[in-house]
Order: sequence, then C-alpha cells, then structure tokens
Amino acid sequence: MPKRIAVTMGDPAGVGPEICLKLLRRSEEELGCQLLLFGDQSVLERVSKRCQLPPPEQAVPGKNWLQTLPGEGHVVVDFGFVDGGKVCPGRVQAACGEAAFRYVEEGIRAAMEGSVDAVSTAPINKEAWSLAGISFPGHTEAFTTYTGASESCMMLYSAGLACSFVTTHIPLREVSSQITRERLLRVMEWSRDAVRRLNGKDPRLLVCGLNPHAGEGGLFGEEERKVIAPSVEEAKARGMSVEGPLSPDACFIAKHREATDCFVCMYHDQGHIPFKMLAFETGVNITLGLSVVRTSVDHGTAFDIAWSGQADPSSLLAAVDCALRLTEAT
Amino acid sequence: MPKRIAVTMGDPAGVGPEICLKLLRRSEEELGCQLLLFGDQSVLERVSKRCQLPPPEQAVPGKNWLQTLPGEGHVVVDFGFVDGGKVCPGRVQAACGEAAFRYVEEGIRAAMEGSVDAVSTAPINKEAWSLAGISFPGHTEAFTTYTGASESCMMLYSAGLACSFVTTHIPLREVSSQITRERLLRVMEWSRDAVRRLNGKDPRLLVCGLNPHAGEGGLFGEEERKVIAPSVEEAKARGMSVEGPLSPDACFIAKHREATDCFVCMYHDQGHIPFKMLAFETGVNITLGLSVVRTSVDHGTAFDIAWSGQADPSSLLAAVDCALRLTEAT
Repeated sequence: MPKRIAVTMGDPAGVGPEICLKLLRRSEEELGCQLLLFGDQSVLERVSKRCQLPPPEQAVPGKNWLQTLPGEGHVVVDFGFVDGGKVCPGRVQAACGEAAFRYVEEGIRAAMEGSVDAVSTAPINKEAWSLAGISFPGHTEAFTTYTGASESCMMLYSAGLACSFVTTHIPLREVSSQITRERLLRVMEWSRDAVRRLNGKDPRLLVCGLNPHAGEGGLFGEEERKVIAPSVEEAKARGMSVEGPLSPDACFIAKHREATDCFVCMYHDQGHIPFKMLAFETGVNITLGLSVVRTSVDHGTAFDIAWSGQADPSSLLAAVDCALRLTEAT
Repeated sequence: MPKRIAVTMGDPAGVGPEICLKLLRRSEEELGCQLLLFGDQSVLERVSKRCQLPPPEQAVPGKNWLQTLPGEGHVVVDFGFVDGGKVCPGRVQAACGEAAFRYVEEGIRAAMEGSVDAVSTAPINKEAWSLAGISFPGHTEAFTTYTGASESCMMLYSAGLACSFVTTHIPLREVSSQITRERLLRVMEWSRDAVRRLNGKDPRLLVCGLNPHAGEGGLFGEEERKVIAPSVEEAKARGMSVEGPLSPDACFIAKHREATDCFVCMYHDQGHIPFKMLAFETGVNITLGLSVVRTSVDHGTAFDIAWSGQADPSSLLAAVDCALRLTEAT
C-alpha cells in the first residue's frame, strides 16, 4: 500500500490552496505517495477557477473520512470549516485562521492514530490564528503540545544546506541559558536520525560555536569550553560523526558546507541567515523530536499574491518529499 | 603631493612580508599613493628570494625616517626590530610578535603626527603578541588606546557587502546590554561617513534587528521596540538614509543586499556569517571612530603557506585602496 501524507491546506486566504492544487497535479507514482489534502473543497474550487488550475478529482467529506477514502489517487478531505464564497483572498480573517488551525488539528489527530504516515503543512497566518483566539504562536507549538512532546527542535532542510536549532523563537539574551549538555545531545541525535533518513546515509554534523571565534579560548565566552565541546565529545563517544564547536563565521563557507550534512546551530539567526541566503523560500521546515513526522513549507501565506496563479509549489513539493523520506525505516 | 599610506608588515613569520612585496610591485600611479612599508628589510630580502619576488627598490633606516624619505616611489622603512635570518617561517615566535607590534606602534605614531595619511595593517598573530607580553588582543584595541579614542567600531567592507558592528569581540550573552541608543547613533553616523567616502555617495543603511524576526512585536525580545527602532527614527530625523530594524535572517538576501550600502549589525556573527560566505578573505577590515584612518586585511597570518609564494595580496590591495578613499574629503 502506498504511504499516505496529509497535507494541511493552510490559511484559505493565502497561497496555500493554490500550491496544494498545483501539488495535486503530480501523480501518486511521481510523488511516491497518496496525498490527503485536509482542507475545504469550496475554497479549492474557487481558487482553481481563479488560477485556471484543474479542480481536485476526488473529495470525501471530513466526517469519518477514513471510512470513505478511495484506495488510490489523491483525495481532498473536505471538512467544511469555512465557506469558500466568503473568503477574501489576501486578507487576515478570523474565520480563515480558525479553519487553518482545524485542518492542522485534524492532521495531527490522523498522524497520531496512524491513519496517515506524516503531515506536511501549508502556511498559516499567525495574526489570523490570534484573531481566531488560537493561543499557539505557530504550527510547531501546536504539534509539540498535541503529540505530548516535552520539547522539539526545528530543522531547516534544502539540497545544499541543513541546519538544526538548539534554540529558536526566544530572545537572543536568553539563548545562553537554554544551551545545556542534555539538550545539545538530544538535538544532535535527532539531527543524525533525521538526516540519515533524508540523505540515506550517516550524516556528518558540524556544531557551531555560540560566541565570536567560538569563544577564542574562553576570552569571548565560556559556553564552548564548559558545555558545547564536552557535549560534542560525548556525542563522538556515542559513535556519532560530529565536529565542533567551530567559529560560527567559518562554519558556512563553501568548504565546510561541502563537508557537512547538518549544522547544529545554537540560535535562530545563526542558521537562518545562511539558509535564507542560499535557499530563500525553497527550503523545508521540519519539526524533530515528535512522535509523528511533520514537515512544512518554509514560506508564509504571501497574501500579496494570493489566488493569483503566481505561487510556486516547490517548497511544498519538497516538504512532501522530505516527509516521505522521514517515514523510511533506517 | 601624493598621499602616503603606511603599511605595517605584520608578523614576519606569516604571509605579511610576501603580500607586502607583491603590493610594492604596483606603481605609485596605479595605487594612487606612495606606500611606506613599516617593516624589516632583512626579512623582506629573505622572503623575496624564497618567493622569487623582486626585492624592494628603496629602503630608509627607521630612525628619523621622515628626514631621509625619498619624495617618490614606494619605500621600505627598515626598523631592524627583528633579524630576518633568525625568523622561522610559519612558527609562533615572541620576537616576531614583538616586531609586528612595534611596526604598528610606529604606524600609529606616524598617522597621529600627520607624517602619513593612513595606516593599512598586514596580519599579526595574537599568540605571538601574547608571547611577547603585549596585552592588546589585536590591532583594533592598540589603535583605539594609542589614538586616545574612548571607543571604536569594526566595519567589514567588500565590493558586494559592507557591515558595521555595534558590538564585536564580547560573549553573545553580553550583547544585549551593550546596545544603547547613544552607541547605535554613533555607529550609524560613523558608518554613513565612512561609506560615503568609500562609495562616493550618501549610503543607504539597513539596521538589523537583534532577536529572531526582529523581536516579532516584542514576543521574542524587547530591544527592537525599546532601543533599536527609536534610534533608527532619531537617525532619520538627523537626515540619514536608514531603514530597520529588519528581521536578521531577511537582511542578507540578495534583494536587500542590492538595496543597501551598509548593514548595521548588532553582534559579531550577525555580519561575519554572511560576509565570510560572500567575501571570504578578500574583504577589508576598517576601524571607525578613530582620529586616524586604519584599514586592515581580513585574513590571518596563514602560517601554513608562509613564505611559499602562494599568498594572495588582494585583501591588502583592497585595504590600501579603502584607506586612500577614506582620506578623501567629502
């Protein structure tokens, strides 16, 4: 039986519906999986007309969808959370935030129950979530809570560069206190396991320092000597292929990028700056450390081009491909 | 009269002497200035033989050099601080650290007296300085102290990217507390003045945020709202062309690089990561905020290729060119 990937449609007023429609045009054979698009058929039909894209071929009602699911071909799981006729493209709307959140809830539930093998998410709008009274700042927090994980880890992945993050959405001044030996080891192990599946071989990790010149022997900070270097040694003792901590400004030059399968970054911008320079809006955002596989596009709702036919589905396509590879046994 | 630039030879055991010899082959007309190479003739002669480079054409003794200086042509100012015959290429040596430091002292003195228009420095070795009992961690601190400046600011400059730094060689955890409105305004003004001279027109500055997503409206940090944004507004009120604070990971994508003449960075790696990716060892390191003009190569002593003929003088050539432009009136 082919694998099943749930794709959540994202904010109905953004580029999500369009990139999902473009994704559905790829056959099961081409993608290597059956897609279940968790969304709203009324929205997809309007967007397909606007963008001159073929409408979805199969749809089943959201209620008890598993019982009516066709055995093959991509399928829209039509939840009816929002009325497509009332959606204003390119506008922040509470009803759209609410619907986008509920597709995600359904996706997580399906993955937890084992009805799908993984979830790939199209972009949501944080302001719309907030307007709808949803307290999660984003997908990652919703997945972490609903799957009962005590923590998780962001990874950015593209063909040329992969970065995992010891810390992400916290103030820079709090980064140092969040870097512990236990956290570092978990992030290294999650990174190793994920990139092994993604690339099909044991990855070489490079751990970035935290401070200028990786602390310059303690002159510019003690975290490298006290926490990061001992963690790298411990990871080596556990059999991992890992080097570092290296001066952060040296890590991302071509020579090191070529010799590295995943950079373990200490804070958000340490990895996001080089990643956005090299793979702007074409990468995949992966959440590690969960009991389910979750990948996401690495771009936003792009309200300025919503429903216009101009949206590029590459990042969503890559997200589905990564999700599929992450479900492989090693 | 042509301008005079003092070039300090750097650590005698590193690539400094070789790149200086290669620089001397460019004529005064080509460079637009007379070079005074502050170094040791005995070292330069040995290196010229090893690297099959022509020896310097003119040299004067270091003592009272100004009185015997030829009116034209590049000149070695031969201080005799180290015996070339005793230098071991590629090795950290106290005598070399000492000599390298004293060329810098002489360079600063000459600039302070007005005997030269600017100083460009070849690379020194920090370990050799330390072995020689020199307490300054690097050039910048020596220049700052000797010129009586209370503070200074690093700028990295290349044809494609310029970054100035609100903080540099301090632990990441201390960065936030060093970002004040006064410091930001000084760095913006110094950056504007320097890039105006370097590029010959009023520059467009882009100020990077400190936190992920530039604080995401306060959710990931308060520095943007409380300090950085008000400073940018104040700078605009003073007539500067400046934008920001922008999310740090968005700053360095091609679109923003093209529209920006100088990025004002909050900490060392925020600017060093993109700079090293785009201009690895070909950039120029400039110290702003001093009463003298000082530029430097953006690479180290490269002991592994010292005296081998393989060293690339591009960064030193660019440093001299920037020094010259920084002495222009605006």
